[in-house]
Amino acid sequence: MYDELKVPPRILLGPGPTIANPRVLKAMTTPMLGYLDVDFVQIMNNTVELLREVYGTKNKLTFPVSGTGTSGMEASLANIIEPGDAVMVGINGYFGGRIADIAERCGAVVTPIEAEWGEIIKPEQIAEACEKVSPKLIAIVHGETSTGILQPLEDIIDIAHRYDALFLADCVTSLGGQPVDVDERGIDIAYSCTQKCLAGPPGLSPVSFSDRVVDAIRKRKTRIQSFYLDVTLLEEYWTGDTRKYHHTVSMSLIYALREALRIIQEEGLSERYKRHELNADALIAGAEAIGLEPAATEDYRLPMLTTLRIPDGIDDATLRKRLLQDYSIEIGGGLGIFAGKAWRIGLMGDAANEQNVLLVLNAIEKLLIEYGYGVKAGTAVSAAAAVYHNAS
Amino acid sequence: MYDELKVPPRILLGPGPTIANPRVLKAMTTPMLGYLDVDFVQIMNNTVELLREVYGTKNKLTFPVSGTGTSGMEASLANIIEPGDAVMVGINGYFGGRIADIAERCGAVVTPIEAEWGEIIKPEQIAEACEKVSPKLIAIVHGETSTGILQPLEDIIDIAHRYDALFLADCVTSLGGQPVDVDERGIDIAYSCTQKCLAGPPGLSPVSFSDRVVDAIRKRKTRIQSFYLDVTLLEEYWTGDTRKYHHTVSMSLIYALREALRIIQEEGLSERYKRHELNADALIAGAEAIGLEPAATEDYRLPMLTTLRIPDGIDDATLRKRLLQDYSIEIGGGLGIFAGKAWRIGLMGDAANEQNVLLVLNAIEKLLIEYGYGVKAGTAVSAAAAVYHNAS
Repeated sequence: MYDELKVPPRILLGPGPTIANPRVLKAMTTPMLGYLDVDFVQIMNNTVELLREVYGTKNKLTFPVSGTGTSGMEASLANIIEPGDAVMVGINGYFGGRIADIAERCGAVVTPIEAEWGEIIKPEQIAEACEKVSPKLIAIVHGETSTGILQPLEDIIDIAHRYDALFLADCVTSLGGQPVDVDERGIDIAYSCTQKCLAGPPGLSPVSFSDRVVDAIRKRKTRIQSFYLDVTLLEEYWTGDTRKYHHTVSMSLIYALREALRIIQEEGLSERYKRHELNADALIAGAEAIGLEPAATEDYRLPMLTTLRIPDGIDDATLRKRLLQDYSIEIGGGLGIFAGKAWRIGLMGDAANEQNVLLVLNAIEKLLIEYGYGVKAGTAVSAAAAVYHNAS
Repeated sequence: MYDELKVPPRILLGPGPTIANPRVLKAMTTPMLGYLDVDFVQIMNNTVELLREVYGTKNKLTFPVSGTGTSGMEASLANIIEPGDAVMVGINGYFGGRIADIAERCGAVVTPIEAEWGEIIKPEQIAEACEKVSPKLIAIVHGETSTGILQPLEDIIDIAHRYDALFLADCVTSLGGQPVDVDERGIDIAYSCTQKCLAGPPGLSPVSFSDRVVDAIRKRKTRIQSFYLDVTLLEEYWTGDTRKYHHTVSMSLIYALREALRIIQEEGLSERYKRHELNADALIAGAEAIGLEPAATEDYRLPMLTTLRIPDGIDDATLRKRLLQDYSIEIGGGLGIFAGKAWRIGLMGDAANEQNVLLVLNAIEKLLIEYGYGVKAGTAVSAAAAVYHNAS
């Protein structure tokens, strides 16, 4: 027999999940409703409307896929790609690589457009490649969680549309913490998750497909390889005039998402974006004050996820274990080629606040000093505090 | 601005979701943990152990897929099927048809083995078909939610193994309410959901794959078409010695599943199966007393889901709407060829109790009388009450 569930208190400052607001957790205590109950359909409609606001879109086909962020990535690719289609994928981190992997499993001929981890994909790389192949789809990660890069999108979207390609943005990390602006930017396909800057529990993947994409899907010659992720069926359930059963969605997760989006609406998007930026600035100021170097190029840093190079002589696993044990703080280790080389500190949703910035800087600094890293106690916190002071 | 979430109280007696126990809802208020946090890995391990108990298996590869029941169906098929593989699918209802659809999307050459809706698939049909094609996989729905049929499995499993085929059982509706007994019966692949007889919220799909299946997957010549559902990657996260990130699972849903499984363990499996049977017997006795005819053949009826033919002259939609509005009771409409022709009354998990049986029989009887159906008030409830009396 197992005991009642008990979990230690954690300050979650990794790549996600972030801390879910108590209002969001409370929403999950709401009893179930039938998947076609008129009251539930109303809740679905609210959720879709709120998602459109945070995505900045009027796209009819906007809804949460019943799976985590990767299921939204797979839905976005599997619905549009037919075997043999040319797909161009920006790869400058772990998740660009994942897009390429999934695109290939869908039968795409992938042209990788590569950059160093911690650098952006340059528009001229895309333009140059478009002279050689005519991609049906160009896919880029907006916020690369593995490197901390915020990829500028506008110029690449212009190129995509000039070459008549559809444009896909992975907004898993950016949505709710930085502007995505689907309609204004002309993003054709966007997907995200619920456990980062939307600050809900993981389990859903909000997606938005433009009418142009919906048209392209209707013109497919082959069947969509996934039934579970087939948007031609899902749209009948989520946005159809008569709702048609496809699968039993998770009421609890939709209740949670609706509440998370209400909290975002109450704060206001521009306030929320500014808050994420200010806290990242303070974190970086503190980190740099003790000689910790961001792994993402300046001017292109993700406010909600900061990568810091691990100083020579400091063991990644040991320090993160101590952070968890002694301070109850979780930060992320490096993924892929950054494993053991960089930390990933997430300040997402509610967790993007002054208290967390000061706590994590103080804890890392103390541990570094204990492990023989020469720095004066209080340096990091004092540099971060100055940023808050100047901003107020 | 949208208001705080408010939902009407509902007695959920449809095909699922069923009512989730308050302990399960409370478990979802537990804060998030990192997806590799040692404390979370412990919770994952508990959940897997409890799942093995309810499945009756020692299969190492037993875990909840991060999606609803249909995602487990798709994971089960996509991992084993390679393009051109022969797959035999029993189709005697809506979900058999769904298995065939997904198998074809995976590239299978499907041999449908059909029976009337409301009848079982006969072992001799499978044996006969195996003389003509050599299937890699034989797939059958254990509890067909669209017809209320509980399919006997033993003879078909014997045939499958005699012809060296793998055997898949769709246990979406049966798991937790009737014995699945994966190891004892020799089921190679089983999948289920969380919102029926496990009585949790929807959103996860527990699966169990035998070592024989795992071997077959390792011998594939082609890549698994889905990355999200690729069990060769998922097993590293769920059951590996060193846990490797694949996607961020939903802590909230895993907390809920663990608690739902604890409740099942406390009740005991055989007690739980008996309870589902008793309540179905009472429901059917009450229904038959007022002339409502079960749509599933006698001796093969699912205890957790009873289909009843709608009497001539009674409008399906009107009656179900009244049930919901006047009595707050949800029952299911018919799916596929049973649309408008049969009701589906689910007594699943906690909801399989005397109170609900009496409530739903009383409400249906009153509405039928109102719509001119000639029956004496109290007939149904009295027949059901006699079943409980005799059982006590």
